[in-house]
Formats: sequence, C-alpha cells, structure tokens
Amino acid sequence: MTTPGDSPLVEAVQHVRKPYVLFLGDVQERSDAKTALGLRDWCPEDCIGQLRLPNCPVDTGLPDLTPQEAAHRGAGSVVIGIAPIGGRLQPQWIPLLVAALEAGIDVVSGMHSRLGAYPELVAAAHAGGARLLDVRHYDGPLSVGSGRKRPGKRLLTVGTDCALGKKYTALALARELKRRGVPADFRATGQTGTLIAGRGLAVDAVIADFIAGAAEMISPANEPGHWDVVEGQGSLMNPAYAGVTLGLLHGSQPDAIVVCHDPLRTHVGGMEHIALVPIEEIVDLTLRLGRLTNPAIRCVGVSLNTSALDAAGRTAALNEYERRLGVPAFDPMQHGVERVIDFLLA
Amino acid sequence: MTTPGDSPLVEAVQHVRKPYVLFLGDVQERSDAKTALGLRDWCPEDCIGQLRLPNCPVDTGLPDLTPQEAAHRGAGSVVIGIAPIGGRLQPQWIPLLVAALEAGIDVVSGMHSRLGAYPELVAAAHAGGARLLDVRHYDGPLSVGSGRKRPGKRLLTVGTDCALGKKYTALALARELKRRGVPADFRATGQTGTLIAGRGLAVDAVIADFIAGAAEMISPANEPGHWDVVEGQGSLMNPAYAGVTLGLLHGSQPDAIVVCHDPLRTHVGGMEHIALVPIEEIVDLTLRLGRLTNPAIRCVGVSLNTSALDAAGRTAALNEYERRLGVPAFDPMQHGVERVIDFLLA
Repeated sequence: MTTPGDSPLVEAVQHVRKPYVLFLGDVQERSDAKTALGLRDWCPEDCIGQLRLPNCPVDTGLPDLTPQEAAHRGAGSVVIGIAPIGGRLQPQWIPLLVAALEAGIDVVSGMHSRLGAYPELVAAAHAGGARLLDVRHYDGPLSVGSGRKRPGKRLLTVGTDCALGKKYTALALARELKRRGVPADFRATGQTGTLIAGRGLAVDAVIADFIAGAAEMISPANEPGHWDVVEGQGSLMNPAYAGVTLGLLHGSQPDAIVVCHDPLRTHVGGMEHIALVPIEEIVDLTLRLGRLTNPAIRCVGVSLNTSALDAAGRTAALNEYERRLGVPAFDPMQHGVERVIDFLLA
Repeated sequence: MTTPGDSPLVEAVQHVRKPYVLFLGDVQERSDAKTALGLRDWCPEDCIGQLRLPNCPVDTGLPDLTPQEAAHRGAGSVVIGIAPIGGRLQPQWIPLLVAALEAGIDVVSGMHSRLGAYPELVAAAHAGGARLLDVRHYDGPLSVGSGRKRPGKRLLTVGTDCALGKKYTALALARELKRRGVPADFRATGQTGTLIAGRGLAVDAVIADFIAGAAEMISPANEPGHWDVVEGQGSLMNPAYAGVTLGLLHGSQPDAIVVCHDPLRTHVGGMEHIALVPIEEIVDLTLRLGRLTNPAIRCVGVSLNTSALDAAGRTAALNEYERRLGVPAFDPMQHGVERVIDFLLA
C-alpha cells in the first residue's frame, strides 16, 4: 500500500526494508501463516517470493527462492510470516535464516520472542551487515501524549471487538483515498500493518504510559489536506485491550472514525462471559472520549464483516446498520469503500 | 498501612522489605523529596530513619542513621525517596548506597532509570546479599486481562485528572475500613503506593497489552466480605494517561468508585490547551465503561482536594459536589472518610 517516504515529514517509527521474501518454515496449517498470506494479499508488489523447508505444505503461490536467489533479486527482508507454536523459532529454521542474513537480507519478525535471543542469528546478521528487526517490539524513544492538535486530517478505525476488520478497513480506505488523488497514508499500529506499510509501530507493545504518545508519533503533523488512515486496535469494551484502544484514540485525535463490526458475533472473542455491547454504545463512547483531543470527531461509516452471510443476509445487515447509525454501511471485502469515502469527503 | 501477608492469597506483585531508611542524598528542595515525605506521613511506623549527605538541608524529622546503624536497627530497605534532576543517581550518593547494600540492606528506587545500570551498586548488592529493586519497573510474568469476575469486593479511586488525591483517598478509605474491623487492603498501582504498602505494581510501567491483566493481579480473588481499595491512576480524560486509567478500571472490576477532584482546577495539569470535563462526565464514562467487567459498579463518594480553600469555601464546595452527584463529598485530609464508608457499607 504505502511505502516509506510517502509523507514529507520525519517519523520516529520502525522502517522495514522491501521487497519481502515470506518465510514459512515448515508450518503445516494455513492458519499458522496468516501474516504471510496477508502480506501477499495486501502488498503483492512488495512480495517477491517465499522461503520454506522442503516439507512445508503451505504455499503462498509466490516463487520458492533460496536465500541466495532472494539476495540476487534484491530482497530487502525475509519476513517470518508465521505464528509458530510457543512463539519461538524452531531449530530446523535457523540455517535458512542464517543464510539469508549472511547474504545481507534483513530478518523481520512479528513474534513476541526477540530475534536477538538467537545467537546464531546475531552472528549471521553481523557477518552479513543485515538487521534483525522485531516489529512486535519498539525500543526507540517515546514521549507521553501531549494532547496538542496537529495539522492534517485523521481517520481511525475502531470496533466492537478485536479481529473483525479494523486493519483491512483502514487499508481499503487509504487505498481509495489515494486512488482519487487525495493525499493519504495508511498508518500501522500493529505488527502486520507495519509489515504491510513498511513502517509503523506496534502500539500495544509500548510501555503503558506511552500509548497515546506513540499514537501521536504514528500520525504526525502533516499538510492540511492530507489524511492519515490509522489502523485501530482492540475495542473500548474489550476487557483485555481497552486501554490500548483509548490511548490510540486520544493520540490519533481523529476527525473521523469508521466503526468495524461482525454482525454475527455476540460475545468478545475468546470470552464467552463477556457480551458485546451494542454498536451504538461503542460509537457514543468513542465520540465522547475522542472529543478530548478533537472536538470535531464524527462517525462516517460502519464496516461490516459479512463473510459468513449469504447475499440476502449481507444486504439485510448492511441496511440494518446503515439505518441504525445513519452513516454508510459497507463490507470492504465485498463492495469496496467508495460510498464511505464519498460521505467522508462530502 | 498494609503489610505483606494481610491477604490470605498469593499475589504476583513486587514486595519491598520493611522497615525503611529514607535516602535524601543532598537534594536542596523539599519538593524534590516528595516520596520520602509521603512515606513518613503514610507509614511512619515503617520508617526508622533517614540517610543523607552532610550538606542536605531537607529533613524528614526522622533520626539520621549511618548505613551501619541502619543495619544494626534491622532496616530492610534504603528507599531513594527523592526525584533527582534528570532521573539519575548523582555520583556523590553512590558511596552511601554501596555501604547500605554491603551491610545487607536492599536499595529500592522509584526512578525511571534502573538501579542495575550502576555497576558499583550491582557489585555491592552481590557482596552484601541485598537486592536492587526498581518499583517503577516490573519484570515479572504478566497475562492479558481475562474479564472474569473474582470473589471479593473492590473500590477504585478515579479522578478528573492526575495528582489530585487518588492515592491518599484510597489509603484513607482502606485505613477506615480496617479501623472498623472490615477486612480490607490498600492495593498500590504506582511506585509511591507500592512503597507505602510494601507491595504493589506500577501499572503504568507494564507493556500496554497487559494493563488490565496487571490490574487483575493487583486485586486478586479474595474472601466475599473483603474490600480491596485500589489506588487509581490518571483520568479517562487525560490525553497522556487515559489508556492506563481504562485498563486499570477494567482489570480492577470495581463494585464502587470514589471520584477525586480539585474544585479549583480548570485544565488538565500541565496542559493549558485541555479543559477539564465536568465531574459528572467522568463519573458517567467510568460507570459505563466499568460495567463491562462489573455490572454492579456505582459511585459512592466525591473526594475533594480543598487544601487551597478557606473554611467557608470548603463547606460551599463540599455542599455543591454532594448536591451535584448525590453521594457524600469529603476531603480526606480535612474531615476523615467516615461518611463515605457509612454510605459504602449501608
């Protein structure tokens, strides 16, 4: 989607070198390769191949490359696009990663465990002049939030829960703004988004005091007509992650929000003891809390994840939520985002 | 106030060894010794002396002790009760701290910089069999919040801003509950509170993903009639720290809140560009967000910081806020907290 340098202004976030080779190791299930498959879908122009062991059945459809071939084709980073069991690299993967590093290719991980914990990788990075980059962590300088209004416009995706389309919605909105010639950037706040954009900061991985300050850095001051489309995280009504959501809201100081929802979900993901609140409650709380740093905040759309509905159910759901909230309802995976962008820019 | 072992249940928080010797170094201003003076006021029975350089004009009123005298009197920890310029220990302080460690006394700090960054202290701790403890940091295991209801009752102090009495209010409420024979614990969520209680966890210093999970650990499951009085942090309408406030609210799952306010404050501390919202808005947002993890949440009192008002102004302010919110208004520094505890237990 976006590439480093789109914005004229300096940013203090993580930068990932493109193009990518997607590392699959020997994972056996496609569900364990979500990050790799997401990168293939969202930045295909940045993905030149895959790197995997002979017994790996998962296939992104990209060419299989050796580390040497990848280097020859100008690969910037090998991205560990899988969620390994226990969150640790498997011993049988190390030689391939060592070879990539020794060939001068960065190795990039979104895992909780740090790449620097593997001495073989540290030595190979040193030998090859390459970097080990943990996009799940951020060790750079951070400030607490200032609450000061910055020039430029911002849109934040929020949601009634985690994992229902906030990242994809933000990517689709940024893409449509750019297609129309509106200056815009997707702003990544999680590890996968950072890999897609090639830059960003996992806001849930910073020290709690700095959530809002990190969000301020992620969408810095910009030209008055420029839109930052900020990837949302969590939900104000998620018992685990709401603090991240609120700090991101205050630091992003959005002019506009799009609320993301799965019409079939009844409870917070993984928490059968916590019922989802009505979407109207999420919108109202978001606007009231968001006014602190941007009194002009408004809701401009509802992004519905309708993948489990048939055509009739989809139409009914879109009509229902559009009526309930009085703003365009859309499924970015099904119909595009033109109506909500029309509404935003009207 | 409380001492480790009050609760029958295991806790995974930081424990500080008492009694304390308060380290003042050679700070020149009482305002730089806030933590030491707070400890002297809130846990005088735990503070056996002060440790300072000959040219230090600040005096807690406690006996001056040498490190050797402190060890002889059974000191558990030397507490660095000052906020040094730049947040770093001064070279002239190191010999006194080394002597304390070599005498077997822990050194405890609430500073951002870690004690482990000073090689002389590390060596002395090793030599003396003593610990270096950074209560501003927590390196123990953490989980994300579960949102599950725990047995026992909880009260959380919240506020319209930072630094207007949430810790002192919680301490006073816990003290009064205990005085009446109600089983209760003050639960510390910041570094000073942790020092006062001898245990706790600085919730704003954990990784953002774990705020609510840390709050769940701080007030663990307890006996049905037991009250945890949890120290609040920040404010839902503070542009820097609201994420911490919300994660603490969800993780604490309070049955009751007391809202703390300074009636003379018009703007967020240090942010002239951010006006305080009405106290009613803070209460309403807190109750609505808090219902996620405790549907029975209610507001039971308003704690007013009236230190800058004369007697007539104080009475007028207390009457005004009691009328506006329909719950007892009190200044814990002026009148005690009996009425609000009556209301809580009624």
